[in-house]
Amino acid sequence: MSLGLVYYTGTLRGNGDMRHVIGIDAGGTATRAVLLDETGHCLGYGRSGAGNPTSAGARLAVSNQVIATLAAVGQSAITPDLVMLTLAGGLGHESAAPLADALADAGLHTAVEVTGDVMSAYFSATAVPTGYLVLSGTGAISARIVDGELDGLADGIGWLLGDEGSGFWIGHRVVRAAAADLEGRGPTTALTPLVMALVDDEALPDEDVRRPEVWKVMRRVYGRRPVECAEYAPLAFRAAASGDPLATEILEGALAGLLTSCGSLVGDDDRPIVLAGGLLYDGGPLSDGLKERYPGRCLRAHDGTAGAALLGLRAVGAAADADTLARIHATLAPLQ
Amino acid sequence: MSLGLVYYTGTLRGNGDMRHVIGIDAGGTATRAVLLDETGHCLGYGRSGAGNPTSAGARLAVSNQVIATLAAVGQSAITPDLVMLTLAGGLGHESAAPLADALADAGLHTAVEVTGDVMSAYFSATAVPTGYLVLSGTGAISARIVDGELDGLADGIGWLLGDEGSGFWIGHRVVRAAAADLEGRGPTTALTPLVMALVDDEALPDEDVRRPEVWKVMRRVYGRRPVECAEYAPLAFRAAASGDPLATEILEGALAGLLTSCGSLVGDDDRPIVLAGGLLYDGGPLSDGLKERYPGRCLRAHDGTAGAALLGLRAVGAAADADTLARIHATLAPLQ
Repeated sequence: MSLGLVYYTGTLRGNGDMRHVIGIDAGGTATRAVLLDETGHCLGYGRSGAGNPTSAGARLAVSNQVIATLAAVGQSAITPDLVMLTLAGGLGHESAAPLADALADAGLHTAVEVTGDVMSAYFSATAVPTGYLVLSGTGAISARIVDGELDGLADGIGWLLGDEGSGFWIGHRVVRAAAADLEGRGPTTALTPLVMALVDDEALPDEDVRRPEVWKVMRRVYGRRPVECAEYAPLAFRAAASGDPLATEILEGALAGLLTSCGSLVGDDDRPIVLAGGLLYDGGPLSDGLKERYPGRCLRAHDGTAGAALLGLRAVGAAADADTLARIHATLAPLQ
Repeated sequence: MSLGLVYYTGTLRGNGDMRHVIGIDAGGTATRAVLLDETGHCLGYGRSGAGNPTSAGARLAVSNQVIATLAAVGQSAITPDLVMLTLAGGLGHESAAPLADALADAGLHTAVEVTGDVMSAYFSATAVPTGYLVLSGTGAISARIVDGELDGLADGIGWLLGDEGSGFWIGHRVVRAAAADLEGRGPTTALTPLVMALVDDEALPDEDVRRPEVWKVMRRVYGRRPVECAEYAPLAFRAAASGDPLATEILEGALAGLLTSCGSLVGDDDRPIVLAGGLLYDGGPLSDGLKERYPGRCLRAHDGTAGAALLGLRAVGAAADADTLARIHATLAPLQ
């Protein structure tokens, strides 16, 4: 435990005999980076803004990746052997060179590897190198990992083409159901007053053929990006909890979509299945449904930064077992 | 019949004893305008580009409305008593003043009224002042017309919130089904090769976890506006015609959506039901389904310009009966 302190005092320069890595979890809202040694001891932590080039744009994303990295290095004077960058859709590897170049410009000469956030989510929960991931947040994706490498994906192809069982998928159905109810062409549902509470501030046009409630929903939904329909997903969980049949049906459909996606990848084995994303919270109907289908195999994902850290250790050939992961979690939390 | 010729020679200036109107059908691609006299004789016709402010922007839309109007007036020297502008979503009436002002700037001082394209579609097929409309094109809407006024709408609230049974609704399901098939998490369907033929030119990223076919679909779909998913709708009709079960199921769902929407408006009476939009073509499965549900009541919509013309005559108090509509159709066609 004193190792981290020594590095931070600045009395030792350089890396000593230890290898070090940085793991980065670059998301659409925040970027988090952790510096750790080869035993899994986390030594430094840094945060910055949006780090995903798809949503933030390439320049801003790389800048935020650099900021988080430099913040994690801090005063330690450690040059990591590798930076492991994990980000949504980070499968094309074209994000490695821009970050390596930008870090070199900032005086940090290090190798960079990139992989997807499905990998960091998986390895946040387990060090077992072969297993599966099911994620449902704004989007939804399933993955198969074999010997620490991404081996297969199902869905995760975005709100317009797929993302079955995601927050968008659910929220989209919620707001459509409310609109149909308001227009009198769909069943009455407890979702409608919940949606109206969200859209009530919208202005009305000078028109009186449609109900004003319908206009408010239209103004709200078309005034935002389509993917923001995910904001209505929590209403399905609330309405289903109070027995609304339509909300229950929507969540059953979401679970069926997730089971179909992961079922196309998951083998009839005893490998772990990591559940990630805000909609697969413990005790919720979707995670309960997955646990019922795959009893004894489901683990809840933790902080993706921990998974990125473990992937970094794997990549430099350090031990990356359950003890290492436990040490990462134990030493990362106090830094955050 | 000679009346039109006389006006066009320019030997008579002004309107004589006749009232005249212009009907405009302003669409997302083209704007068409017709000048006619109070008996329903069409005297002049003009075309221009996109005339719907929602898709083309307000300035361009108004310019194209003016161009089509001036082209319809042509050398006739007739000042119409009224311009009846019909356009999608034209229920807020805020489009009347900009067109009236722009026409006055161009030297044509005339009153302008605005109504929705559901009205022009309905009155393109019948002069009966009370009845119903079911439209399925890129979007889908149902309407109830009472005494020549729009009395109620169902759906038509856009691709993200509604448009059940529309080209978008169908095409979206087609391309999602193809993606699920390609990923091995959905049934095999004849839709997939049809979609692939459309997306085959798309470039591929440097990534090998997903099948290249999946990437091609993603690049195509996310490279265009979401509503352009309507381009895949015709594939459902083709695949269903050759017996594909999934395509058949999609079209059955579309028909169910249309029946639900119009069923929320249509009374148990014998009023006409006008079928409009490219997907309700004669002999197709959707129009057949509607005719089966409402035997003997369904009429196919014609050119919306004719409906706008009839609405213009109604608005100035001229006769607007079946004979008038027949005369509009008979004299409009040779001008086009």
